[in-house]
Amino acid sequence: MQSSSSGGDVGSLDLATLAAGYRDGGTTPTGVARAVLARIGAAGEDHVWISRVSAADLLARAAALEGLSQTERAALPLYGVPFAVKDNIDAAGLPTTAACPDFAYQPDESATAVQRLLDAGAMLVGKTNLDQFATGLVGVRSPYGIPRNSFDPACVPGGSSSGSAVAVASGLVSFALGTDTAGSGRVPAAFNNIVGLKPTKGLVSTAGVVPACRSLDCVSVFALTVEDTMEVLAVMAGPDPRDAYSRSAPVVPAALRAPFRFGMPRAEQLRFFGNAEAGRLYGEAVERLRGLGGEAVAIDFAPFAETAALLYHGPWVAERTAAVGDFLAAHPGAGHPVVAGIVEGGRTRSAIDAYRAMYRLEELRRDTAPVWDAIDVLAVPTAGTIYTIEEVLADPVALNTNLGTYTNFTNLLDLCGIAVPSGFQADGRPAGITLLAPAFREAAVAAVASAAHRAAGVTLGATGAALPPARPVTYGGGGLVPLLVVGAHLSGQPLNRHLTDAGGRRLGSVVTAPRYRLHALPGEPARPGMLRVASGGVAVEGEVWSLTPEAFGRIVAGIPSPLSVGTVELSDGSMVKGFLCEAADIAGAPDISRFGGWLAYRASL
Amino acid sequence: MQSSSSGGDVGSLDLATLAAGYRDGGTTPTGVARAVLARIGAAGEDHVWISRVSAADLLARAAALEGLSQTERAALPLYGVPFAVKDNIDAAGLPTTAACPDFAYQPDESATAVQRLLDAGAMLVGKTNLDQFATGLVGVRSPYGIPRNSFDPACVPGGSSSGSAVAVASGLVSFALGTDTAGSGRVPAAFNNIVGLKPTKGLVSTAGVVPACRSLDCVSVFALTVEDTMEVLAVMAGPDPRDAYSRSAPVVPAALRAPFRFGMPRAEQLRFFGNAEAGRLYGEAVERLRGLGGEAVAIDFAPFAETAALLYHGPWVAERTAAVGDFLAAHPGAGHPVVAGIVEGGRTRSAIDAYRAMYRLEELRRDTAPVWDAIDVLAVPTAGTIYTIEEVLADPVALNTNLGTYTNFTNLLDLCGIAVPSGFQADGRPAGITLLAPAFREAAVAAVASAAHRAAGVTLGATGAALPPARPVTYGGGGLVPLLVVGAHLSGQPLNRHLTDAGGRRLGSVVTAPRYRLHALPGEPARPGMLRVASGGVAVEGEVWSLTPEAFGRIVAGIPSPLSVGTVELSDGSMVKGFLCEAADIAGAPDISRFGGWLAYRASL
Repeated sequence: MQSSSSGGDVGSLDLATLAAGYRDGGTTPTGVARAVLARIGAAGEDHVWISRVSAADLLARAAALEGLSQTERAALPLYGVPFAVKDNIDAAGLPTTAACPDFAYQPDESATAVQRLLDAGAMLVGKTNLDQFATGLVGVRSPYGIPRNSFDPACVPGGSSSGSAVAVASGLVSFALGTDTAGSGRVPAAFNNIVGLKPTKGLVSTAGVVPACRSLDCVSVFALTVEDTMEVLAVMAGPDPRDAYSRSAPVVPAALRAPFRFGMPRAEQLRFFGNAEAGRLYGEAVERLRGLGGEAVAIDFAPFAETAALLYHGPWVAERTAAVGDFLAAHPGAGHPVVAGIVEGGRTRSAIDAYRAMYRLEELRRDTAPVWDAIDVLAVPTAGTIYTIEEVLADPVALNTNLGTYTNFTNLLDLCGIAVPSGFQADGRPAGITLLAPAFREAAVAAVASAAHRAAGVTLGATGAALPPARPVTYGGGGLVPLLVVGAHLSGQPLNRHLTDAGGRRLGSVVTAPRYRLHALPGEPARPGMLRVASGGVAVEGEVWSLTPEAFGRIVAGIPSPLSVGTVELSDGSMVKGFLCEAADIAGAPDISRFGGWLAYRASL
Repeated sequence: MQSSSSGGDVGSLDLATLAAGYRDGGTTPTGVARAVLARIGAAGEDHVWISRVSAADLLARAAALEGLSQTERAALPLYGVPFAVKDNIDAAGLPTTAACPDFAYQPDESATAVQRLLDAGAMLVGKTNLDQFATGLVGVRSPYGIPRNSFDPACVPGGSSSGSAVAVASGLVSFALGTDTAGSGRVPAAFNNIVGLKPTKGLVSTAGVVPACRSLDCVSVFALTVEDTMEVLAVMAGPDPRDAYSRSAPVVPAALRAPFRFGMPRAEQLRFFGNAEAGRLYGEAVERLRGLGGEAVAIDFAPFAETAALLYHGPWVAERTAAVGDFLAAHPGAGHPVVAGIVEGGRTRSAIDAYRAMYRLEELRRDTAPVWDAIDVLAVPTAGTIYTIEEVLADPVALNTNLGTYTNFTNLLDLCGIAVPSGFQADGRPAGITLLAPAFREAAVAAVASAAHRAAGVTLGATGAALPPARPVTYGGGGLVPLLVVGAHLSGQPLNRHLTDAGGRRLGSVVTAPRYRLHALPGEPARPGMLRVASGGVAVEGEVWSLTPEAFGRIVAGIPSPLSVGTVELSDGSMVKGFLCEAADIAGAPDISRFGGWLAYRASL
């Protein structure tokens, strides 16, 4: 598969490389479409696809995009980006099978998530293979064959979003949609050396998705880099009246604490199922996180493990029965035997079981909540090991369960996460780690995940291409308020904890425009008053911190007279909210402007 | 029962009257305890109590309270207040029966809610009768007898918190705890001419409460006035690590829009089950809300009615089976026949049923959400009619279901509500209305409920005592930020919508201390700049608005230079956050201080 990286003439399909190609004219959507078609042809019997957009339609789509004006193109964040869609997600014009031929139907309209991608200029290539009805983490439960693992054909590709992961790893598309209920958007990423983003429940509409567990299902994104998954998320995210589980993202602190803190299960709680290489790779990944400045915090993994067990051994399987049980009962033989057996098992669960499990989940949610005060992200192996096809076929349910050890608690506990590569076993098989955080913290997760990916020393999927340079993440962090502090709120000063306790993050040191005077105010704690003056001003040193509007509001509400918060001009001409001082009784306060800042003045005392 | 109002020598036990008696020395806890004991004795066979604190223990508790210093007493918000507890809530020292003698146990500790009341100085009188396992809205499903309706002994008292409601209505205690899963904290209030507060789920801990539907159960409060229920709530509310469903209240806009808007079901959707008097009383209650300045908004009640039907006809009954089904199966004959039949019915529900009902509930939640943008509170009859004991015994399940028409959707949709009296039928039987709002809006509900109660022209419960004067509600509204506006944000001015759109509420008109100068700033929209000066200041007219910290933060983040938000002194010497202006370039802006305010200046143009 390594050869496909240079298939066609367009190079890597990661979004940064592709956009550069479109920008400098070296690539066109038609060229990309032709390359995609050539690569798919060259890949042969890889069992990635269940259906595809015809070559003619794909080229017509490319041509239509090329017919747009430069202004129109610039308004399309995914202009000319080829993508694939897991075949349990509707895309108008292609059947939806959920990997069950007898279940197939022709959707009238695309899923909301797919439509938003098309509206953003992306080019749909086809629908990908999966564990039937998204039931499995292995990728071998499909009548359409077993997608070929992009590194070792003896290994499972991971599931249930098997075809989508292999399509991305093989360089056939820039990104692919999966779904993730138990771990279907992460395990296949680990097994194919790519990135898998499992967004917060409700952040991406599931309207037009065949339900697995409807209360837990998420649309997920596979791509070659963390930044790519977040660009796709930015296009898809947002409320959808068609999905009752759709949620609006609140404003959350986006960046990380410095140093950031990552949780890891206590050593005796880690399970690698006899795979020492997997243990070694996880240990190395943790060391790399430390090398990136992270502080490791050992956490009690027991309540996470109990939650994970609830998903497969508890009543949630009845959600799968609610979704497709009646169909399978009415169509004997239509289902994959393992899948049909699992779905049928949901009938044995009572409503009493369901409510008791919910009570226990609520307790586990409460018990795990304090963990998130202690850490920014939880770093776990994406899967504890990787299995061969032969191993899984011999023991299809138990080994599948093992693969969910580090994924199955995520949606039940309302977390989001990103799986990134963490290198290769001595036998060449890939592994990964997953960074997790509470709902809506995708941006914080992405910051760690991107750095961890870059530090892992891998190339992109199975393409052999190098990772492009890091770039800012385009999703998350919106709505935050930058606040300039010049005195007692500076790092290390007495009131700085008001910022850190409120989730504030330091954006950097700055200097104001030379239009201010600084005075030392009376009272405790010692603090300066900064005043804009019509002439004779100096530049003042300060720090800019990022706060949620609520935290910002609480801080402003608490500041005492004669301080206020207004607009301050920085040395680069930009404006930021910052602490100012009323002029009325400044006369009696010593002018300390000559020090150029509060810290220099304090040091002089 | 009317005679009990003057039983003993202490008058009405409403909190305002009681506190006044303690304050002026006319009453002591011992005197109140003796009066309570006398009233209970005089009430005779009312079937209110399942167990009681002994007279000796009650008097000892009163004496202990009297032994406290004035400082210690002042720290007890419920000093010397006698109360009762529904007998499905643990109170150490008394058995918990849930109205099932074979189920009885001796709790080691009190429920969190009860303990907080005791810690606040309240005096526990006893445990009250209920529909067994809190299963019923009627009050006739108990082996301890049927609590005597405080107005018409032929009528049901309402349930399941039957004894608690009758105890309050009869003047035996100042307040009583109930529980409310379907409507058990509201229907008995309506049937006994008292107030019933059903707080937001999770706001009051249910640790130490025998579960009915554990995901929905709430501890509720019966009292003689709305303000009393809110004082009790203020003591009980707050997170409890013992209850996994416990939640912290966010800061919400506390007061009402002016004019406030109340929803009512469309006329053809109202059901009074043939009781024209109930329909008349509801219509009059609505007219009184209009008279209080409210604007009626007809809403589609269909999704609320469908939600209500889900509770009794859907799988949630299996939560009752999860709670006590095993006990009843192991103790044949221990349960009330109607209750045992209902609980047993939960066994027929599958997990598939449970999940499908949750999906439908999520859709109904989505469908009803926009209603709350259009209204402040929803005003419904508390019950559509009142039944006699004879009627209910003849048709125990169907008539019980009818009584939940306007209550059963509340907890499923995460609402809070207060039931208040709305007068009497021609035959002397009482009726009520319930005001409902989204989670954590208790304070807004209380504002309407208190006014509606006072407008109804009733006396307190069955005591004959007049309502005490209205007083401020002590719970809710915390954490809001008052903001002084003096220019374009004033009512009727161009930027006022920034305040109203953010849920801001106008607290009133004010005048600053005479320490400011007002300037007309250049630019659009026209706005003033207010500046504190060392001498020569004037008083400036403005308005104070109340905002959540988040809304306040967003507004401060959006104000342009040279405006800022700092601390402003008002004419009464109090300090409030308000708009100020930097002094640097004020010289060129006309001084308009002589007008005393922005509106006067604008009127002069």
